[in-house]
Amino acid sequence: MARRSCKSDIVLNIENNQHADSFCNQFAFFVTIGQFVGLMPLKKIKKNGKYDFYFQWFSPRIIYYFVNVVSSFSIGIFCIIEFSVYGFQLDKAGTLMFYVLNFFGAMVFLNISRYWSHIMDEWTHTEIALKSFREVKHFKRRLILTTVVATILATVEHLLFILNDISKTSVCKGEETNKIEEYFNIAHPQVFRLVAFSYWAAVLVKLANIISTFTWNYTDSFIILISSGLAVRFKQIAETIQNKNLQESDDKYWRETREDFNKLYQLCTVVDKHISLLVTVSFANNIFFICIQLYNSLKYREGFIEKAYYFYSFAFLLLRTASITLYGAWVNDESRKPLQRLHSVPPKQYNIEVTRLIEQMSSTPIGITGSQLFIVTRGFLLKIVGTIITMELMLLQFGPLIKDDKPKSFSISRQCNFTDTE
Amino acid sequence: MARRSCKSDIVLNIENNQHADSFCNQFAFFVTIGQFVGLMPLKKIKKNGKYDFYFQWFSPRIIYYFVNVVSSFSIGIFCIIEFSVYGFQLDKAGTLMFYVLNFFGAMVFLNISRYWSHIMDEWTHTEIALKSFREVKHFKRRLILTTVVATILATVEHLLFILNDISKTSVCKGEETNKIEEYFNIAHPQVFRLVAFSYWAAVLVKLANIISTFTWNYTDSFIILISSGLAVRFKQIAETIQNKNLQESDDKYWRETREDFNKLYQLCTVVDKHISLLVTVSFANNIFFICIQLYNSLKYREGFIEKAYYFYSFAFLLLRTASITLYGAWVNDESRKPLQRLHSVPPKQYNIEVTRLIEQMSSTPIGITGSQLFIVTRGFLLKIVGTIITMELMLLQFGPLIKDDKPKSFSISRQCNFTDTE
Amino acid sequence: MARRSCKSDIVLNIENNQHADSFCNQFAFFVTIGQFVGLMPLKKIKKNGKYDFYFQWFSPRIIYYFVNVVSSFSIGIFCIIEFSVYGFQLDKAGTLMFYVLNFFGAMVFLNISRYWSHIMDEWTHTEIALKSFREVKHFKRRLILTTVVATILATVEHLLFILNDISKTSVCKGEETNKIEEYFNIAHPQVFRLVAFSYWAAVLVKLANIISTFTWNYTDSFIILISSGLAVRFKQIAETIQNKNLQESDDKYWRETREDFNKLYQLCTVVDKHISLLVTVSFANNIFFICIQLYNSLKYREGFIEKAYYFYSFAFLLLRTASITLYGAWVNDESRKPLQRLHSVPPKQYNIEVTRLIEQMSSTPIGITGSQLFIVTRGFLLKIVGTIITMELMLLQFGPLIKDDKPKSFSISRQCNFTDTE
Amino acid sequence: MARRSCKSDIVLNIENNQHADSFCNQFAFFVTIGQFVGLMPLKKIKKNGKYDFYFQWFSPRIIYYFVNVVSSFSIGIFCIIEFSVYGFQLDKAGTLMFYVLNFFGAMVFLNISRYWSHIMDEWTHTEIALKSFREVKHFKRRLILTTVVATILATVEHLLFILNDISKTSVCKGEETNKIEEYFNIAHPQVFRLVAFSYWAAVLVKLANIISTFTWNYTDSFIILISSGLAVRFKQIAETIQNKNLQESDDKYWRETREDFNKLYQLCTVVDKHISLLVTVSFANNIFFICIQLYNSLKYREGFIEKAYYFYSFAFLLLRTASITLYGAWVNDESRKPLQRLHSVPPKQYNIEVTRLIEQMSSTPIGITGSQLFIVTRGFLLKIVGTIITMELMLLQFGPLIKDDKPKSFSISRQCNFTDTE
Repeated sequence: MARRSCKSDIVLNIENNQHADSFCNQFAFFVTIGQFVGLMPLKKIKKNGKYDFYFQWFSPRIIYYFVNVVSSFSIGIFCIIEFSVYGFQLDKAGTLMFYVLNFFGAMVFLNISRYWSHIMDEWTHTEIALKSFREVKHFKRRLILTTVVATILATVEHLLFILNDISKTSVCKGEETNKIEEYFNIAHPQVFRLVAFSYWAAVLVKLANIISTFTWNYTDSFIILISSGLAVRFKQIAETIQNKNLQESDDKYWRETREDFNKLYQLCTVVDKHISLLVTVSFANNIFFICIQLYNSLKYREGFIEKAYYFYSFAFLLLRTASITLYGAWVNDESRKPLQRLHSVPPKQYNIEVTRLIEQMSSTPIGITGSQLFIVTRGFLLKIVGTIITMELMLLQFGPLIKDDKPKSFSISRQCNFTDTE
Repeated sequence: MARRSCKSDIVLNIENNQHADSFCNQFAFFVTIGQFVGLMPLKKIKKNGKYDFYFQWFSPRIIYYFVNVVSSFSIGIFCIIEFSVYGFQLDKAGTLMFYVLNFFGAMVFLNISRYWSHIMDEWTHTEIALKSFREVKHFKRRLILTTVVATILATVEHLLFILNDISKTSVCKGEETNKIEEYFNIAHPQVFRLVAFSYWAAVLVKLANIISTFTWNYTDSFIILISSGLAVRFKQIAETIQNKNLQESDDKYWRETREDFNKLYQLCTVVDKHISLLVTVSFANNIFFICIQLYNSLKYREGFIEKAYYFYSFAFLLLRTASITLYGAWVNDESRKPLQRLHSVPPKQYNIEVTRLIEQMSSTPIGITGSQLFIVTRGFLLKIVGTIITMELMLLQFGPLIKDDKPKSFSISRQCNFTDTE
Repeated sequence: MARRSCKSDIVLNIENNQHADSFCNQFAFFVTIGQFVGLMPLKKIKKNGKYDFYFQWFSPRIIYYFVNVVSSFSIGIFCIIEFSVYGFQLDKAGTLMFYVLNFFGAMVFLNISRYWSHIMDEWTHTEIALKSFREVKHFKRRLILTTVVATILATVEHLLFILNDISKTSVCKGEETNKIEEYFNIAHPQVFRLVAFSYWAAVLVKLANIISTFTWNYTDSFIILISSGLAVRFKQIAETIQNKNLQESDDKYWRETREDFNKLYQLCTVVDKHISLLVTVSFANNIFFICIQLYNSLKYREGFIEKAYYFYSFAFLLLRTASITLYGAWVNDESRKPLQRLHSVPPKQYNIEVTRLIEQMSSTPIGITGSQLFIVTRGFLLKIVGTIITMELMLLQFGPLIKDDKPKSFSISRQCNFTDTE
Repeated sequence: MARRSCKSDIVLNIENNQHADSFCNQFAFFVTIGQFVGLMPLKKIKKNGKYDFYFQWFSPRIIYYFVNVVSSFSIGIFCIIEFSVYGFQLDKAGTLMFYVLNFFGAMVFLNISRYWSHIMDEWTHTEIALKSFREVKHFKRRLILTTVVATILATVEHLLFILNDISKTSVCKGEETNKIEEYFNIAHPQVFRLVAFSYWAAVLVKLANIISTFTWNYTDSFIILISSGLAVRFKQIAETIQNKNLQESDDKYWRETREDFNKLYQLCTVVDKHISLLVTVSFANNIFFICIQLYNSLKYREGFIEKAYYFYSFAFLLLRTASITLYGAWVNDESRKPLQRLHSVPPKQYNIEVTRLIEQMSSTPIGITGSQLFIVTRGFLLKIVGTIITMELMLLQFGPLIKDDKPKSFSISRQCNFTDTE
């Protein structure tokens, strides 16, 4: 609908905006990454300097995608089986949720891929139709930089994770077991307490682990980049209004500004409709992990690597959660910013268009939502903190009660031996 | 009031809407179910293809209804007596609340029945007066499907509940007590710890138990179906606006659309006025039970049936709570949906009617409320989660403190013997 | 200010409203009660069928008032001294807060008394100026009934409180101590653990105790009656709009209605300004006591009277808190009620006055506030529940930690003996 | 932007407002205090009776400032090292946060200093442009009084803090250790458990401690004084509207009033933009300390000085937190106050300017924010209480769990000896 009305404006703006880089093109590299890891099973074609995306149900990419999804799903199943055999342990619930939520995340990406072409068309048409459109300098560079930084941080985290498990392996000296086997027993007990060790199983499990880790990071980066893309456009409108000499603003100016704002708002709802489930999964994942890590903070940690891993991964977790929230809130921030300036419009220039703009800005909150259960604003950051504290209280209450029933989480000595005894 | 003004429009619309199936007729089958279980003591007459409902204070249905109410009331009383005799036990508070809240639920249905004819008249008149009225395809089928699915899930839950208690009975082997007597001692201790076992008492108790279970499920389904009925009409308005070519929308169009919207809003407040107490009871019931079940999650469960019952009933509980919330929130969702489109009305077509519509939508939240203490929206789902966690914390604090004072909840051996020793 | 503009309308309405009973007169009986217990040190004069109130700094009533205030203040001091001598006990914090908060409550009444004449003038002038003014049938009877019911419930509670302490006294049989002395040792340990028993001290302490209990009940009833007075006027406006044939409503009608609504709103802010501190004290008092009583629920209670007192006083506490909240919220409810009807005003009758009325109702929440920290609405009831649960969690955490340090609260045997040993 | 439009009005108002004391001048004394303690590295010049401020990166004041910042930073580092060497202790987390948060606070002051000249220009220009501008009587006296009271309270607190540590020192009688060395071992263990005692180190540590204490108090006073400055201007507008005969208010009057209000609103956003991070730091600091002090309330305190210090410092903490909140909320209060009166504007005088004013007041909350995460209103006070309780619950849960792992916080005997044994 909204798109159709936009098309009438295309002729006017097409010359201004055509050569400017569209978000579709700027974001294309990130889709390519998604293709490589099998999260976005799309065919990408460059036509007249513009990328087009095609989704097909029957294609090798889909098979690749499903291999990805099934891998995290099966480790999740292993976790559940481990719980039912060896009893529930609160500190291992994190591992289960990790695989389950990343499985859901990957599922959501299928849906996003199916509508990706539609979303990008919408985006491009909106950009062409915007009167306030200007090129955002170095925006693509910024997207790439964000991705690179996120990837490096995540890689360091995963390497520390592996190192940590290796360091635990090396504690069990003097025994003549296979070091690699031992590592996998310690790093992925959910599988190798149930299934005998074999090298091909180890490779599959490690792969599934890496894929899930990647999905997690890809999800968060995806939300951050998409939010940035929306926010910079709202920012352009805010800046246009800020720099306008209000004495010279006439009816036409305000009508065009309002229409621009409304077009972005419509784009924002379309994008949100498709990614909001991903936002929910991402927040659930991060909040849950913060709670588990806080709970684990009470554990005693001996070696340097163990301590380093714990503090690094916790800091990384807090950083990424804050980043998603603040980048998501950026859209909301920029969409509300012009409001301040609109109150200064002089009486002569004040007209029904300004009224409508104020009305729209103050009555309809704009931004990224989590399945429309919550809208991401700056204030949401404090709510997250409150939620984490409350959930933590519950974990601390449940934790000892669960442990009383069951044998304690297996100690280092047991870790070294259990493959023998069991 | 609102109805009278509607009547003036009847002549215009009556031809279009008359033959279409009204909600009153589509919902009639659910009222019939209510009649069978004695929750809706109404006389139903079909006249000119339309159902009419009559409520009479002196009728056999009322007696049937009061038998129903008294049964859950008396088991509730037994629970209280048991507490005062044997001491309060937190994990049995659930049983008490179950009977007490279903007793209240049944009480509310008396009031709903009294005004049912009025509510349905209001609904039918609104439907006839709606310009945007179109038949919702397969809506009756959908209502029936929802009811059937809910009934099957609930029946399975109740059968597992019975099986669970039977399995406990069979644990006490080698003793020559009456198996049926034993079952009732275990399944309904609140009665048979106080009263000697007799077959007629057992039948009555089992009946009361089934009736209360039914009331619980009927209440939740009732709210879901009524919400659906309101939501689909709001959805029709939203779709009409969505598909309208805004360039061609004139004053008349917007006036009629606003009047349609307002009529539905008025209908929504009338319906809400009568069912909002039921919504409160339903949420109180479900939230309380989730807390109790979470608390019970810490108990050790041995047999397969015990585990199966616990996980099934807990999942069912979560599902039904989420369903009521999301179906209730559906009304609110659909009533807000046109807002997005209204911001795109072009300046020439923008008039006072559009302003009023935007004003009404953004200033007055529409939807199902719980005694006007809360309004059911999607965001309410998160608040429920927060409430449950907080209440759970309190149960976990109180639980052990209460138990310290009193003897532990009776063990399996005591379960088998207590009819002998007491 | 607002009053002055009202006066211009007086001539028009004075004939209609003059003979009707004003709130000032209807409420006078409650002021009289306040005079008797020394909470409202006012001189009351009936002139031309209307009550006038005078406040004087130097009058016997003021002395009486200060005796009242000093009494609760001094017992509060005794509590603090007891804590500093015998150590802090969480379950006795309630007694301290009881005297301290009622002392503050009594202080607030001084301020209310000083401006009472002003508040009543405002109220009467508003009533005279109201176009929608009609007599509320049996309103005075209703006020009196509420007062009587509240008084009876409170008296029963206080009698049970005394009986409870007497029953504890009679446990210590066989000893030849003075029964009355013993009673006071048990009922008012905060004084008689510090001061030797004497009959005149006992009389003073009992008096102070009764006065504080009365202040507590008077405060709550005061808020309920004032809220009722405001709510019924808002209700009249709502009913006038509800019964109006909207087709016939013209500019003049809507202007008068809006002005009526606004006058009541102005009155509401004036009244709230003076009583909002009392509302804060009342809520703090009740919420704190509910928490303490919940905490005490874990204590073991032996005799029937002890149990009866506990359950009765707890139920009474819940009832009064819910009553204040719901009566307070009634003002807010009634002030929002016309909003629904206003959305149905037909386009021809819709004008700037209706817009302003809608704007005012939806943008400015009207009602009783607690020092403007919170506004009392129906939804506030749920917030109170949440607050109580959270505070309770904290008490339960702190309770045992405090006790570990200090000797346990003195047992029955110590209760019987401590006057000998100490 | 906003400033430019103001300048056009200067000529009209300059005569009225010129001689009146500007906030810039009234606040200058507080900047001077900031210069003395090295928090505001500004050059202050008085020109034509008006203060001008210059910020230079290379100046002795900057060096002084960085000495200040580095000192709190280094003690913070010592705290972290102590934790990593001797293990984490919850009751010492307060000391760490004290230095870390005051370090951040000092950092924010650098930024405020850089833009101080800009902020003051904005403020002065707004004041000159205000039509409603009148001198606030004794406002400078009030600012000074607030500062003096805050300083005295803070000094008493710090003296008690020192006395408290001295009193602990004197407990260890009979030993012939250096009293001063002992004092520093007890008062600043984070340094002297790691570094051997020396007099110059002691002087540095004490200085750093005093500087941080000062930063803390300066931060809070700064926020209070700035808030007062904004609030009194909003109050003037509210009073102007309150005292205006509404019948005589014409278009021009409302336009000017709205423009005045808007100018203040624009000023408020500019000020808030620069100080909002400081507000966040201040609230974080105070809330964290209240939690820690509540947690410490469970500790046993023997001597009179220890008790006096605890109760005084806790009361001071509550008072300052409440003060900041209520002074911050004062801005919001005053900005909303005219709303009540605006609803009474008679129909003839009601125009688009009044509509805009109402719209602005009700849709855009004005006030001091904490990094736009929260806006300080009266209701925020209750949220703070809720937050403190929830955080306290978590501390109480974590506290014992942490202590189980580690040796208990060192006892008095160890306090006296540890310099010998270690």
